[in-house]
Amino acid sequence: MAQDMLLFWGSGSPPCWKIMIALEEKNLQGYHNKLLSFEKKDHKSKEVMDINPRGQLPTFKHGNNVINESYGACLYLESQFKSQGTQLIPDIPLEQALVYQRMFEGQTLQQKQSDVIYYTWRVPEAERHDSTVKRNKEALTAELQLWEGYLSKPEAGPYLAGKAFTMADVLCFPVIAYGFRFGLSQEKYPKLGQYYTLVKERPSVTASWPPHWLENPQGMDTLKDV
Amino acid sequence: MAQDMLLFWGSGSPPCWKIMIALEEKNLQGYHNKLLSFEKKDHKSKEVMDINPRGQLPTFKHGNNVINESYGACLYLESQFKSQGTQLIPDIPLEQALVYQRMFEGQTLQQKQSDVIYYTWRVPEAERHDSTVKRNKEALTAELQLWEGYLSKPEAGPYLAGKAFTMADVLCFPVIAYGFRFGLSQEKYPKLGQYYTLVKERPSVTASWPPHWLENPQGMDTLKDV
Repeated sequence: MAQDMLLFWGSGSPPCWKIMIALEEKNLQGYHNKLLSFEKKDHKSKEVMDINPRGQLPTFKHGNNVINESYGACLYLESQFKSQGTQLIPDIPLEQALVYQRMFEGQTLQQKQSDVIYYTWRVPEAERHDSTVKRNKEALTAELQLWEGYLSKPEAGPYLAGKAFTMADVLCFPVIAYGFRFGLSQEKYPKLGQYYTLVKERPSVTASWPPHWLENPQGMDTLKDV
Repeated sequence: MAQDMLLFWGSGSPPCWKIMIALEEKNLQGYHNKLLSFEKKDHKSKEVMDINPRGQLPTFKHGNNVINESYGACLYLESQFKSQGTQLIPDIPLEQALVYQRMFEGQTLQQKQSDVIYYTWRVPEAERHDSTVKRNKEALTAELQLWEGYLSKPEAGPYLAGKAFTMADVLCFPVIAYGFRFGLSQEKYPKLGQYYTLVKERPSVTASWPPHWLENPQGMDTLKDV
């Protein structure tokens, strides 16, 4: 089935990485894929825009079925290949509820982290304020403390929604890995650090690790004081 | 089963309304619920914080299963009550792909709309810029034109993902209704206007219509020039 699939992706993009981890977990190796460059604006090229009018990566197709939204694509893959590879959404209601809860809390984490990491990239210089940067960092600190707290509960871990690797990890791990690459302190967030250390060795994650992170293991330190 | 459910909600909050529409569509009337006031900071009260450490509405429980994230709660309800009421996620892969795609594009629409509607509420006065407001409005206009385009395709409609009412409508209609309440022009966005007019008469939607919108049918005109 994976030969029917096509993924346009960018290295290090958490949304792209989410789909790539899901594909690995569902044993869907061998899909067609093309690594594109954000710098060269490949994501605005005709081959992408024809499938994805937003001109964004990831751009993903399974046969004629287009799902460019990373959460949508991951849910689609789990639904279409439910009994293949890792079961990413548990059947037991209590476990399922926690997976759905953490999956979508991950969007808030990503948003708050992006507000800090991309501030100078997204906000024109004339509109920047130190007070905004300070507030965004405080919001991210509070968010990270919430996740650190989740992982500190006696019954928690080692994964985000308990003892099994689930869709919550597929969707949130790339965001957390991105945080550590941008200087997040493993001393300040030891439980998140333990989680990062555990999951980064998972085969689906190593197989899809951003190639430019391998070339340049050291990222920026934007989050060092968060 | 609905007697096992508890929803804390705020009137007019799109995330709350999404869960309420899903509950109606799944024939889960009769759930326990409590209308809380954002103005009185009820969402930071102990009864909410005990279930939802973020202190936000919606706060939702099914038995002991807590799913406060609106997307998560709606997916959980569809999964747990798949054969009850309206099937919100189709089985046919092509149809399912489109539902997942539109569901998550709806988050971008909500984000861009919120950036305009809540600007003065979220950004302290000393950090506000006319240039930001202009850019946010342009981004929202482009986003709305994308949706108008989706609904203008010959094979499209009347619902967001085709001929059937789906999870895409559950999750996006409250956002679109919010846009029209805040002054969006039905002349400028006629297809979105038609969609709004159709869905606002749906029983699940009328049964969950925000009570303070009934009292005050006219909202603000923040989006009139978008």
